[in-house]
Amino acid sequence: MSFFEKLAIASRKNSSLLCVGLDPDPQMKLSNADNVVAFNSLIIKATVDLACAYKPNLAIYESMGIEGLSALQETLNLIRQADPCIPIIGDGKRGDIGTCSTAYAKTLLEDYDFDAVTVNPYMGSDALKPFLEHKEKGVFVLCRTSNPSGMQIQELMVVRGGVRRPLYQIVAELALSWNWNRNVGLVVGATYPEQISRVREICPDMLFLIPGVGVQGGSIEKTVRSAADTQGEGFIINVSRQIMYAAKTPIGTRSKDSEAMRKMRHVARQLRDEINSYLPSSLKKNLKQICQSHEDQANRGESYRQTESSVMATSGR
Amino acid sequence: MSFFEKLAIASRKNSSLLCVGLDPDPQMKLSNADNVVAFNSLIIKATVDLACAYKPNLAIYESMGIEGLSALQETLNLIRQADPCIPIIGDGKRGDIGTCSTAYAKTLLEDYDFDAVTVNPYMGSDALKPFLEHKEKGVFVLCRTSNPSGMQIQELMVVRGGVRRPLYQIVAELALSWNWNRNVGLVVGATYPEQISRVREICPDMLFLIPGVGVQGGSIEKTVRSAADTQGEGFIINVSRQIMYAAKTPIGTRSKDSEAMRKMRHVARQLRDEINSYLPSSLKKNLKQICQSHEDQANRGESYRQTESSVMATSGR
Repeated sequence: MSFFEKLAIASRKNSSLLCVGLDPDPQMKLSNADNVVAFNSLIIKATVDLACAYKPNLAIYESMGIEGLSALQETLNLIRQADPCIPIIGDGKRGDIGTCSTAYAKTLLEDYDFDAVTVNPYMGSDALKPFLEHKEKGVFVLCRTSNPSGMQIQELMVVRGGVRRPLYQIVAELALSWNWNRNVGLVVGATYPEQISRVREICPDMLFLIPGVGVQGGSIEKTVRSAADTQGEGFIINVSRQIMYAAKTPIGTRSKDSEAMRKMRHVARQLRDEINSYLPSSLKKNLKQICQSHEDQANRGESYRQTESSVMATSGR
Repeated sequence: MSFFEKLAIASRKNSSLLCVGLDPDPQMKLSNADNVVAFNSLIIKATVDLACAYKPNLAIYESMGIEGLSALQETLNLIRQADPCIPIIGDGKRGDIGTCSTAYAKTLLEDYDFDAVTVNPYMGSDALKPFLEHKEKGVFVLCRTSNPSGMQIQELMVVRGGVRRPLYQIVAELALSWNWNRNVGLVVGATYPEQISRVREICPDMLFLIPGVGVQGGSIEKTVRSAADTQGEGFIINVSRQIMYAAKTPIGTRSKDSEAMRKMRHVARQLRDEINSYLPSSLKKNLKQICQSHEDQANRGESYRQTESSVMATSGR
């Protein structure tokens, strides 16, 4: 199943445009790869029916060496066990040429079998081609990133066709030309909603991956209003730290794990619902219907209830 | 010892501005990580007194999974055993923000203890800061890369201070402002010598890492003439495939290994000498003196002879 099919299923099933980041940072004091997997397990159990996708950042896992790669693989297994239809985005921001780019694409899209990846556009299309050629996979090109220093490059005024525009808008245009397999998306930061609107004008149908809500301070309302396509969607919003940090004592005793999951689930549900609350009414209605049928199903004691009860239960480590 | 100190020592000791890339590609049919290490061992033995630096590209090793990371670590050990003063550049072209950038910097500059790395400027200075703060390490920022598609972004005309210039020149200027620890270098491709000249005008004292000679078709003469600083140097030229491909049957029997090393050494020596032949006479004289004293030493049966004989010997796998 392609990334876009999986995403459509998961977002409808869970009434969600919330992507959950899996990047346990040093502030969590997880100390080793086993603890990272255990912590990820809590997040996944707490959010698997609230998320439309998961996004581990490779940097965190690589920094733990060989054990970190195992932790990444175990995390992917946990997600796939929890829901084989929820897509996983490998956030590595890679970009290289020739055999090296081919090797990165193989690692991420074949070996780890990520459903989508993030890539850096600075080296142009031949650096991205090995990724783009995986038709079933999503390729999110960095466009206007959420960090303040992104402006040093991305807001530079470029003259093209007699018109001056910031570089990120040119990258958005280039992304259209790189979309021969219709598998390109863009990374735009919630911290710059006006820029998101400009990118949406250039790429009316392209999927946006949007970080920057939560700890980085981006507004969900502004983000949704600027990112929504003519159907009222076409974006997913990633949150990592705000959900993670809800679990102040992430792993320990059974009761602590249960409490951590409850808190993370509470934050994730609020985020999902807040995103949905700003969707245009047609989509909201649509999502509500799906949501209702999902609740009906849950009331019949099926998957939703299972997930709820797993949240209440301990992680079983 | 800092990257720049190591590089000065190695380049003088070996009369060399040749960086040897260690990226065995699929065309070499090395089939597994053990073979990659064995092959790297041949390259290192064949070139350790001819190179000023080594540059493994992370993509190749990552694509072999956990065994690949071990192969990378073993390769670094082999280089350090062969010459503890020769610097090693980790070519990963990383760029991310916050804890993720910090994690990448830790992995590459602390855990692997690379002497220098390559980074991508698209996300601006806060993505590079965790690397730049390692004062003893070199940080090579992608500027005008050697691949044709690099132009799609890097040659875009940017208006800044009332003047129109291509983006790569702005990146070169920004690199000056990111150089608060005097540890920034630039990646410029040998395939674009005119652009190298422009970057040299902007950054008269900055070290350039130059790929694109050999298989990619860049001219050594044009590269040296455009890259040399006022001292006649300030650059290193990386060659990977041209040296690797000289060994057509890279690993196998003792006699084949010996033959492969002889061929790789021959190509590496030719490349080193060709680079040196275009250096300004003052530096050439200087290098010649060092070279002469090095030859004298070799004649006294010391390190040079040892290396030569190791080339003749088998790899001892």
